[in-house]
Amino acid sequence: MTSLQEPGRLVATYRLQCPTSEAAAEISRAIAREQTLEVPRGVVADELEARLLGQVDDISGLPEGGFDATISYALEVTGTDLLQVVNVAYGNVSLMNGVRLVDLILPAEVLDALPGPRYGLDGLREMVGAEGGRPLISVAIKPMGRTCEELADLATTFVRAGVDAIKDDHGLVDQSPAPFLDRVSAVGAAVAEANAETGGRTAYFPNVTGPVDRLGERLDHVVAVGCAGVMVCPSLMGLDVMRSIASGPRPLAIMAHPTHSQVGPDRGEGIAPDLLYGTLYRLAGADIVVYVNAGGRFSWPVEQCEAINARLRAPLGRHRSAAPAPAGGVDDADAGAWLERYGPDTMLLIGGSLLAQDDPLGATRRLVEAALAATPSPARS
Amino acid sequence: MTSLQEPGRLVATYRLQCPTSEAAAEISRAIAREQTLEVPRGVVADELEARLLGQVDDISGLPEGGFDATISYALEVTGTDLLQVVNVAYGNVSLMNGVRLVDLILPAEVLDALPGPRYGLDGLREMVGAEGGRPLISVAIKPMGRTCEELADLATTFVRAGVDAIKDDHGLVDQSPAPFLDRVSAVGAAVAEANAETGGRTAYFPNVTGPVDRLGERLDHVVAVGCAGVMVCPSLMGLDVMRSIASGPRPLAIMAHPTHSQVGPDRGEGIAPDLLYGTLYRLAGADIVVYVNAGGRFSWPVEQCEAINARLRAPLGRHRSAAPAPAGGVDDADAGAWLERYGPDTMLLIGGSLLAQDDPLGATRRLVEAALAATPSPARS
Repeated sequence: MTSLQEPGRLVATYRLQCPTSEAAAEISRAIAREQTLEVPRGVVADELEARLLGQVDDISGLPEGGFDATISYALEVTGTDLLQVVNVAYGNVSLMNGVRLVDLILPAEVLDALPGPRYGLDGLREMVGAEGGRPLISVAIKPMGRTCEELADLATTFVRAGVDAIKDDHGLVDQSPAPFLDRVSAVGAAVAEANAETGGRTAYFPNVTGPVDRLGERLDHVVAVGCAGVMVCPSLMGLDVMRSIASGPRPLAIMAHPTHSQVGPDRGEGIAPDLLYGTLYRLAGADIVVYVNAGGRFSWPVEQCEAINARLRAPLGRHRSAAPAPAGGVDDADAGAWLERYGPDTMLLIGGSLLAQDDPLGATRRLVEAALAATPSPARS
Repeated sequence: MTSLQEPGRLVATYRLQCPTSEAAAEISRAIAREQTLEVPRGVVADELEARLLGQVDDISGLPEGGFDATISYALEVTGTDLLQVVNVAYGNVSLMNGVRLVDLILPAEVLDALPGPRYGLDGLREMVGAEGGRPLISVAIKPMGRTCEELADLATTFVRAGVDAIKDDHGLVDQSPAPFLDRVSAVGAAVAEANAETGGRTAYFPNVTGPVDRLGERLDHVVAVGCAGVMVCPSLMGLDVMRSIASGPRPLAIMAHPTHSQVGPDRGEGIAPDLLYGTLYRLAGADIVVYVNAGGRFSWPVEQCEAINARLRAPLGRHRSAAPAPAGGVDDADAGAWLERYGPDTMLLIGGSLLAQDDPLGATRRLVEAALAATPSPARS
């Protein structure tokens, strides 16, 4: 992960699978042209080529084979529009085999223009009343097929156990057993009622992923019900859709879910997961970024997870840190160990393993205790 | 490509990179659970498991190694919402290395609910006055950095040469030399004027990819200027954003551009390009689907291109055929050969190679003549 900022230019690093430095140089020149002018040399005036053609700044051989090519682009090429930034960084070249986007340095103008987290990690702590800089605990209501009442009952249990956040499973959309509007009403009311009972401030994040032409209506409903945030699947619904929620007037926190993001460790193509989740999701407005943890159902190495955490917490223009939410088959019994490894600036997300317990309330309470035990010492409050 | 339709269920085929049939069976069961209930066995009642858990229908070894696993999902899991269909077909499993989505059979309910092409290939021919079932010719105005006037002049040349469609380069968004609203006004007016001069009906497709919260305004402007269609980059802006344009009230044709779609031939992961472009883009409303042709700047095999063509033209519920638009560094001199290979139900898209000619008007005219020469015989008109 680099942090050097070249003023006024977007700097992208591509990992190239090719055998020789000559091949790497040729591919790099092809990328620089493909992502900008996209016309053969000689079509436009030299002045325009000099101004707008991508510039190959560096090509370095890697010990494990292959090359990292660093290519920079003028601000005039991208402007500050999120989708054009992505289009220039990884547009048509995403169709080339053996070309992976592994790093991005964004000019200050782009960083300033993007919303970033509205609350960020500290704002979330304040929202849910988490004191002393402790880690946060989130859980999921699931699965699809359960009714609104069953999901609301589950949410009540979780609030009583003292979790910080409850999210819809990303597979809960608008199916007949628990249609969106009814589900948000029922679960939102149950969470509010249980919060009143416990004096807690558990936040509920309904999944608003669905038809874009119904998003406004759904967000309005979420606000009307009094939810603190929403969950959105940016790689399914569109990264700029998340950006538009984050830039919009409704004061909602955003939890981003990685479904359909089509990334994985060590692939020859795609975007490096830490870059997609840690930089792009965060800049597009995610306060919380869910990803698949090591040791769960997905075989992602822990180093990949730590790289995501690092990006979400790293300095990034004027933007707040976002909360990494490792998830995906994390066993509740391992919560303490993960919090120790990842540190307090983490929101652990536990799903199915709680539901598999004989005593979900007790298991969830132990999870909350693990978070309290992981409060940094000396406590800040 | 399969065409057998199992009533009421979505059937997905995954290509698995794993060494043994036991491993393939285990991965298949994991996928079936991940994409539906996403809770450990035993959490929910047997009735719910039976109703909603994905069902592994078949696992077949492949001669080249690996396995194809066919898994089906109940309609209750997906509903008819496009994003939930994609979420179930390739959601969290897109984060597993070695799992590629290669085929989808959609239930009639889903096929009926999605818009598909508003015009389709025949509607496009009617729109532009192409007679005799001939292939269509499209070109791009580019590059970024040119002013509205320069782009409009280029469009005038193309209309005079008799092309069927002119598209914005996908890198032309809202940059200062040619901001969106000004560009569409200028190019739209130039196309209308040149059409009046030639008696032709060349259609202009401005690129509306950009901030989702400005899409409505941009579409209104496109309609006000009198353009027949728009270009959209669905994998950048969101597949459902394209669906919403196609389902919406404005009578626009849609050209889909593949930038950032992150697919390629023979990768271990991702969606097979023919499935993404030929089935999903088409169902989401694309009348024309641009893809990277063999023999150009991208090294895609011609068989992959032919598979895309086949999907775009294949029977698909009530939906019209869409026009395949092979592009990406296709040399204008090869136009005739490509049209012979791909057949008349094709829209060839030629970009930079025309601009590199000493006589772009003459070169474009020869391209149009190649399309006329490829009119099927006997002519239908």
